[in-house]
Amino acid sequence: MAWLFALMIDPAASDDVRMHFADTFAEIDPSAPALTVGELSTQRGDGIFESIGVVDGHAQEVEPHLARLAHSAEICELPAPNLTQWREAIRRAQAASGEGEAVIKLILSRGVEHGPTPTAWVTVAPAADFSKPRTEGVAVAVLDRGYSIDLPGRAPWLLLGAKTLSYAVNMAAIREAKRRGADDAVFVSSDGFVLEAPTASLIIRRGDTFVTPAPNGGILHGTTQLSLFDHLAEQGFETAYETLPVSALHEAHAAWLVSSVRLAAPITAVDGRPLPLDAELTASFNQYLLSPRD
Amino acid sequence: MAWLFALMIDPAASDDVRMHFADTFAEIDPSAPALTVGELSTQRGDGIFESIGVVDGHAQEVEPHLARLAHSAEICELPAPNLTQWREAIRRAQAASGEGEAVIKLILSRGVEHGPTPTAWVTVAPAADFSKPRTEGVAVAVLDRGYSIDLPGRAPWLLLGAKTLSYAVNMAAIREAKRRGADDAVFVSSDGFVLEAPTASLIIRRGDTFVTPAPNGGILHGTTQLSLFDHLAEQGFETAYETLPVSALHEAHAAWLVSSVRLAAPITAVDGRPLPLDAELTASFNQYLLSPRD
Repeated sequence: MAWLFALMIDPAASDDVRMHFADTFAEIDPSAPALTVGELSTQRGDGIFESIGVVDGHAQEVEPHLARLAHSAEICELPAPNLTQWREAIRRAQAASGEGEAVIKLILSRGVEHGPTPTAWVTVAPAADFSKPRTEGVAVAVLDRGYSIDLPGRAPWLLLGAKTLSYAVNMAAIREAKRRGADDAVFVSSDGFVLEAPTASLIIRRGDTFVTPAPNGGILHGTTQLSLFDHLAEQGFETAYETLPVSALHEAHAAWLVSSVRLAAPITAVDGRPLPLDAELTASFNQYLLSPRD
Repeated sequence: MAWLFALMIDPAASDDVRMHFADTFAEIDPSAPALTVGELSTQRGDGIFESIGVVDGHAQEVEPHLARLAHSAEICELPAPNLTQWREAIRRAQAASGEGEAVIKLILSRGVEHGPTPTAWVTVAPAADFSKPRTEGVAVAVLDRGYSIDLPGRAPWLLLGAKTLSYAVNMAAIREAKRRGADDAVFVSSDGFVLEAPTASLIIRRGDTFVTPAPNGGILHGTTQLSLFDHLAEQGFETAYETLPVSALHEAHAAWLVSSVRLAAPITAVDGRPLPLDAELTASFNQYLLSPRD
């Protein structure tokens, strides 16, 4: 993959009131060594991240992504990110992202082992071509996430609402889904409630209501889902957060996985059982998601 | 921390029959940048590791560590490590570890995103001074791991028997334990069975029998626990693997957390309730664990 840009960041304190942080940034060659072997991100997946979609040089939904980064930092007891500094880093990354679709990744690591501070960086890479999943959809396999739906609130050390760098399980779930002949996975709680996909949120259509699993600590609150719900409400649709049994997915009038870069991928089958695909509505979703959004 | 040594490794295929792999090693300055921002270890905690104790230049229990590395690779669907190559890398690391106690870390990452191969490296660092936990012991807090005891066998995508780089939850559990006034955590399944500590195995004494939770896929099989069980058997004690309810920990005649670098730390209290500490037996454990072991 041809990386387009990488910027190392010396993270500023959250109460640093500077308007510009030029001296905290160092642009680097994305293919050159930049991190030491002492990095806790690499030794322990100990850090957090965000992936921001970019369309024709416009980074989408920057503020919701920054809000979630700050939320993840709080759960993981990392220093609160200085959002002015991150906005400036995103602005620079955006300028390097070119035409078409790209992805900006923000990473905040706990730092080098026994080191004084977190480390942070931003990268830009071209997005993969997602036209096929956006139009033809994805088949999903339902996989047990192992937790009961009421666990996250009483076990915050499991970091379930944080977007951490410890994503090995998410990647393994996608491999398992492919082994089963599907394209992606949908996690379900051990007591049978749908949660989210390893790298996307789930939205279900039930008549004129669009429903997503309640982000009660056990799943990430998807920035793309939030944005699409705003759009749907403007179109006069009902939207709702609910605790959804797996049967709600099987009985859906339609369903989508939505995420920042792949955008809206209609679900065509759940464990081999077909779901209706609404091509027109899906196209309108992706048209909206590709338009500049803030 | 003063790192002592770092070696980048170009991983050889498992069927590469060379006796020496000199051309696959590159010694680097451990404090210099060595990894690119595309590393999947750093982006997703996607890789595996081992921590090997070293005493006066002797790496302990190398073969059990390599066997576990290979087992983790299999669970994570990483290419099987070439153990001859890793042995040679450990030999070089060992030679750089000096007198006293040190830790050799083996890391096998899935590689650079969209790159052709895994990446791998070995580091050596001096061990921290663990004389206090080895003699005075550690107080532990019992924390829910969130999974039922029978889950791992039916959900291999949760990677529960693998020592992955996705350790953010392990680190968060230790922070939670400290917040509760303890020194370390003991994980318990959602249905009430003790599992392991975030970075150590649990051993319980019940009369003249030493018991550890059965490594049925949900926990790592501790190399130090294995070695200590061999030693205990030689001393005429009974050893056993069992499914242990939390009450077994509270009612233990003594208990220890054992790991490759801290070695045997007696548990002095469980959620504030004291456990008996057998200073003499603990000292004999650590004397054994500090002796050269293969």
